[in-house]
Amino acid sequence: MFSLLSEENHARRGRYLTPHGAVETPVFMNVCTQAAIKGGLGADDLERIGTQVALANTYHLHVRPGDRLIRDMGGLHRFMTWNGPILTDSGGFQVFSLAELRKIREEGVAFPSHIDGAKIFMGPEESMRIQSNLGSDIAMAFDECVRIPSPYDYVRRSCERTTRWLIRCKAALEAYNTESDAINPGQVLWGINQGAVFHDLRIAHMQEIAALDLPGYAIGGLAVGETHQEMYDTIEAVEEYMPKDRPRYLMGVGTPSNLIECVARGVDFFDCVMPSRNGRHGHLFTWEGVINLNNRKYERDPDPIDPLCGCPVCSRYGKSYIRHLLKAQEPLALRLMVMHNLFFFNSLMTRIRDALDAHCFEAFRAEFSEKLSRRI
Amino acid sequence: MFSLLSEENHARRGRYLTPHGAVETPVFMNVCTQAAIKGGLGADDLERIGTQVALANTYHLHVRPGDRLIRDMGGLHRFMTWNGPILTDSGGFQVFSLAELRKIREEGVAFPSHIDGAKIFMGPEESMRIQSNLGSDIAMAFDECVRIPSPYDYVRRSCERTTRWLIRCKAALEAYNTESDAINPGQVLWGINQGAVFHDLRIAHMQEIAALDLPGYAIGGLAVGETHQEMYDTIEAVEEYMPKDRPRYLMGVGTPSNLIECVARGVDFFDCVMPSRNGRHGHLFTWEGVINLNNRKYERDPDPIDPLCGCPVCSRYGKSYIRHLLKAQEPLALRLMVMHNLFFFNSLMTRIRDALDAHCFEAFRAEFSEKLSRRI
Repeated sequence: MFSLLSEENHARRGRYLTPHGAVETPVFMNVCTQAAIKGGLGADDLERIGTQVALANTYHLHVRPGDRLIRDMGGLHRFMTWNGPILTDSGGFQVFSLAELRKIREEGVAFPSHIDGAKIFMGPEESMRIQSNLGSDIAMAFDECVRIPSPYDYVRRSCERTTRWLIRCKAALEAYNTESDAINPGQVLWGINQGAVFHDLRIAHMQEIAALDLPGYAIGGLAVGETHQEMYDTIEAVEEYMPKDRPRYLMGVGTPSNLIECVARGVDFFDCVMPSRNGRHGHLFTWEGVINLNNRKYERDPDPIDPLCGCPVCSRYGKSYIRHLLKAQEPLALRLMVMHNLFFFNSLMTRIRDALDAHCFEAFRAEFSEKLSRRI
Repeated sequence: MFSLLSEENHARRGRYLTPHGAVETPVFMNVCTQAAIKGGLGADDLERIGTQVALANTYHLHVRPGDRLIRDMGGLHRFMTWNGPILTDSGGFQVFSLAELRKIREEGVAFPSHIDGAKIFMGPEESMRIQSNLGSDIAMAFDECVRIPSPYDYVRRSCERTTRWLIRCKAALEAYNTESDAINPGQVLWGINQGAVFHDLRIAHMQEIAALDLPGYAIGGLAVGETHQEMYDTIEAVEEYMPKDRPRYLMGVGTPSNLIECVARGVDFFDCVMPSRNGRHGHLFTWEGVINLNNRKYERDPDPIDPLCGCPVCSRYGKSYIRHLLKAQEPLALRLMVMHNLFFFNSLMTRIRDALDAHCFEAFRAEFSEKLSRRI
């Protein structure tokens, strides 16, 4: 399902087929945690900002409105009216980041709901059941996302369990896909590599999960507190052990510079809440660097956020107006700022793909990698 | 500037010309308090929901971001990128509803800002200066909106002062319009009738202000606590004293039934925050009546809010999804619900105009007046 179209050093230009269409890679997936982008963007907006893949959150949708309800409504695509590819995370990250009182056993994890404290149990089969009910195109394996730093022995044992969980995920999803009323029988499972920043554990774990011959592999457990250099080093260490003919997804990353630097290290898929979250605070990306719209100097600035940007916001609205909305706490401010930032990230990936197609990615990297994350 | 196209009993079909285009009446103006519709709708959305006139708030824009700033940005039309007609209220209503500690003198009113408590003084000249800076097409007179109930003698003296203030408003705006750098030299002033629910005071005040030969007249100070019947009776009492060849604007009204009933009583312009405010709480208008999207029965309802509605929301999204967004406190819920409600109100006015054009308004009224405000 993945075609490697061209390479430039480690960077890859590819295409990945899903039951809801093709994805041109490298790609930045747009995060729709609760089946909508925070800031007031709907599926009609996703089409306008160049979204290729919507990413939705298994844990959040399980607790509200419930995956059974979404299944009854015909699955997540119909529920949110997005007919393009959808990837769902496994819930693992939320289990380990939101729940302080979790209990990890071989079967899975017991923890209280962050909404009402109700007891929830989630293991590989439960996560696959939920994702099957949601009917996403790409389901992610249920894994433990270990903290950095964690002791070597703990990480080693956690990786071993994550492998055992992955084998159970694979069996469960294969079974759910054969059910006559499966929402999306073409749903596939991607494995997740763990191992914190211990290169030998990362490599050993990657080799184990690669042997399962899954259609895609993610690098999980990074961007959780380590330095950028540690993250880059870890990716470089594990990348050569990732199957070349499968897409690679770096979970939860990152800044424009991170994206460029990780494309250069062989990554194909990305996701991050940063453009929407930072956007809601007035931190806006431009082709000259990052601006803070709260700054007084934009009070009477009628120009668009980025004169080089072709997004629906920059085509119409000026900084002075959007800054007023931000200061007046008008919800429209959030919508416009998030819309711009996501369009910027999607456009950045388009330009990265164009550069790869033209075999000049290294020149693009040299021009933009440092510049785009600079505060101006 | 106002053409009376046809009449059916007291109901009127008309057209009003402004420097930013014609307004087909009867019309419901869409409230953009702080230069945006609360709920995350921008000027691009106004175009999609059939808005004819945007109504912005003089007091709110004076305190934030400041009318001088908006003037420097080229006026409100350019600031918010809305090129259709704009009406600004005078600030009077906010002065009398937000400020507990106001001091009314002949010159005007001194009161503390609701943002930071800073002292503000606003009288006829100040209100006209602000509205001239904003550059709206229709400026409203600075008046006192008296509470209901208030003593007869207080209302009488207040009406006399409001007339004196109106004369000053007229002189001030005429002067500002001749300034070489006036934002919108074609800006006009509409007078506001007051008098609480005392019919003789209403009539006397209306006769006084009609003598000033202004291009439009509003009925203010209603929908502030009196019953619907008292409101209708007051409109009926004063209507015959309003110039037939000028548009009549009933301020701050109302429900769909109120709109139909007041069109039947000769009103041409309306505005109200109700469709957007109720929308944000899940109270949604349909051609069968009002639904409460919080109700459990909509949990698995995939149908649009109103199958008969052609709005951008009903064309795409189902009740189950929007209800989930509402429960999950996703800003998208507010946007979709407000968008639907405002589209509904704008469509209602279109159908009222169509009925007037076809000389069957009374049949339309009989079919819908009670039905549309019914909770179902």
